[in-house]
Amino acid sequence: MTEEETRRLLVDQLRRYYERGWISGTGGGICGPADGGALLVAPTGVHKELVGPDELFTIDPVTETILAAPARADLRPSECGPIFAHIARERGARSIAHTHALSAVLFGDLADGGDHVTVERLEMLKGIRGFANTERHDVPVIRNTPREIELVANVARALADPRFARAYAVVVEDHGVYVWGADVWEAKRHVETYHYLFEATVARHDRRRKG
Amino acid sequence: MTEEETRRLLVDQLRRYYERGWISGTGGGICGPADGGALLVAPTGVHKELVGPDELFTIDPVTETILAAPARADLRPSECGPIFAHIARERGARSIAHTHALSAVLFGDLADGGDHVTVERLEMLKGIRGFANTERHDVPVIRNTPREIELVANVARALADPRFARAYAVVVEDHGVYVWGADVWEAKRHVETYHYLFEATVARHDRRRKG
Amino acid sequence: MTEEETRRLLVDQLRRYYERGWISGTGGGICGPADGGALLVAPTGVHKELVGPDELFTIDPVTETILAAPARADLRPSECGPIFAHIARERGARSIAHTHALSAVLFGDLADGGDHVTVERLEMLKGIRGFANTERHDVPVIRNTPREIELVANVARALADPRFARAYAVVVEDHGVYVWGADVWEAKRHVETYHYLFEATVARHDRRRKG
Amino acid sequence: MTEEETRRLLVDQLRRYYERGWISGTGGGICGPADGGALLVAPTGVHKELVGPDELFTIDPVTETILAAPARADLRPSECGPIFAHIARERGARSIAHTHALSAVLFGDLADGGDHVTVERLEMLKGIRGFANTERHDVPVIRNTPREIELVANVARALADPRFARAYAVVVEDHGVYVWGADVWEAKRHVETYHYLFEATVARHDRRRKG
Repeated sequence: MTEEETRRLLVDQLRRYYERGWISGTGGGICGPADGGALLVAPTGVHKELVGPDELFTIDPVTETILAAPARADLRPSECGPIFAHIARERGARSIAHTHALSAVLFGDLADGGDHVTVERLEMLKGIRGFANTERHDVPVIRNTPREIELVANVARALADPRFARAYAVVVEDHGVYVWGADVWEAKRHVETYHYLFEATVARHDRRRKG
Repeated sequence: MTEEETRRLLVDQLRRYYERGWISGTGGGICGPADGGALLVAPTGVHKELVGPDELFTIDPVTETILAAPARADLRPSECGPIFAHIARERGARSIAHTHALSAVLFGDLADGGDHVTVERLEMLKGIRGFANTERHDVPVIRNTPREIELVANVARALADPRFARAYAVVVEDHGVYVWGADVWEAKRHVETYHYLFEATVARHDRRRKG
Repeated sequence: MTEEETRRLLVDQLRRYYERGWISGTGGGICGPADGGALLVAPTGVHKELVGPDELFTIDPVTETILAAPARADLRPSECGPIFAHIARERGARSIAHTHALSAVLFGDLADGGDHVTVERLEMLKGIRGFANTERHDVPVIRNTPREIELVANVARALADPRFARAYAVVVEDHGVYVWGADVWEAKRHVETYHYLFEATVARHDRRRKG
Repeated sequence: MTEEETRRLLVDQLRRYYERGWISGTGGGICGPADGGALLVAPTGVHKELVGPDELFTIDPVTETILAAPARADLRPSECGPIFAHIARERGARSIAHTHALSAVLFGDLADGGDHVTVERLEMLKGIRGFANTERHDVPVIRNTPREIELVANVARALADPRFARAYAVVVEDHGVYVWGADVWEAKRHVETYHYLFEATVARHDRRRKG
């Protein structure tokens, strides 16, 4: 896959997330692999469904510095940059998405102040790398912070927790979710799968409480 | 941004609102900046998703008179005109949208006859200009009136209330919402953000009552 | 509006109803005005979102006979024909739609065996010809029958009931809804408006019972 | 209908299922008739909405061997193959779809460990071949297994049960549903109809429990 194809796929994903209501109002973000090991990152503060393939920043996941900027001088790189870079370093992720999906927020509410919510009894668990449908998957839920950059510490703590070693997502209470994969396709599969797991778990929880 | 680009963006927004179910059955409306300080306003009584860029009226936000009308002689300017003009004058808004989204109606129901509903604990609050995600946002809810033009007084009272000085939306009970911004892009971001906040607040309220 | 434009608009409406989930699995139907006072009716038993403008039947609303059939010999006219013709004769409707929207079925459930459900306190009531948003609108709900053709008697009884003289829709329990208008555009507005009223009324009813 | 048309229709259906959220994250599958009595089957482990008409496998429904593979060497045939082949042999189905729709999972939950859920009082029952809207339809619900191939025995038991002789769908608990028809068009109608029946039955069940 060439970098040009990656760029087109990334902005296409942003459009699809927008159409599903997972990102809106300039929220959300995405990154994917640039040639040479760097990360392509969407700009911040813009309507994400309108980002073009030439409007991505190239950042170094180790130094977190900008290696290349788009021609449009009014763009700034995503506030998610430091979190994306941290996940890339710690988990070898090459593509990461960040959404504000309401299903992720309602799923986070189920933690009720705790540090995870358990997903179980769903075939779609097999959509997460390494999981069988017979397993229970504890998805980490962290506290939100005033600024996205301050979230790094909370994300880092979840990633360092051995209970979450097999997770490819961190849910942020009142906020949304970060989801990643080894490449753009795995990230896409994980994004779709985790959002399904959130919806299913919330829907089943609602029914159980009514019973 | 030229007036021609503004016209295309406004009718594109109407189409998107329609596709999301926020306007339907000829309801809803939108306005944006014309060249020279006037407002471009969609026509009334037509299917809003089919309005063309050349079918907008140009109105003076101070005198509320029509400065220019579209060639199609059967069109009349939106009944929202006086409300749009009032918001433009009082808040410096250059673009305003009016939807009948069910989420806005259900959000208004939460006021239970009161004059506001509080939004809190949501990252998406940052989508409203000037708000931090740690703040509580009291969104004004006003009573509906038989005709849209009679709503002006209720909208005016909410805008004059210092408790709502930072709000960019007025919810109308049993009816929908008016949302605005300093330009077309901020109005778009505010529209998407407020509708998300409505959905999230209603969904969480439902869950709390069941608990 | 030429008959050719009407044909294109009718099949476009079928596609939109399908995309919204209001018709599916070959269900649903639509009719509109042919030149000379007859009705254009969609075929039965086909996937409605795939019907072409040349695949409509022309029927006489008085005699209910087929005046013209599409070239495709395998098509049969909609089972809704007699109901459409009856509504056209009794109400002067020139365009009628029939959907199986789940919201219409759930709205019908609220009648709880009675003959109507009341819609009130919704601005969108103004989307129905002649209604103010301050009025209460009793929407008739009739019993379903094994075959669509047997529904005519139940529809006729509702149309003859003076309490429903101002209604532009008849809900069929466990089944869906018939909605009409004086022309294709009014029928479109009424279809969108009634489905909104159904969704809103069901959503509010759910909340009230939980309170 | 030529095999080429069937191929295009099958991948078009996958795209539509994806857009409705019935398949996602590489899940789901579909098959249809190849020339000469064999089955065209979608590949496994790929994003189903992106499958091209030339990327289907041709399998023998009796021997379950691959008769023809697509040019792309990295593709493997669907894990659903043996289940598709079994349904094709036992029921004469020529087209079968497998979705992970949340509505199917929530419908399966209503079985509460039992072997079926009853659908009744819905006009859309007429969308299933041979059913009247006055009938009750017991839809079989089977237990899920760690691997799709191990499901064959559970599917086979449901198909062999005379109580389910008229069913065109088997719901798999925690997983989704298999739906079939005598040809691609009937399968499409059955897929849309069963998903509607699932949504309606779940929505009504929720309301009944609240009452």
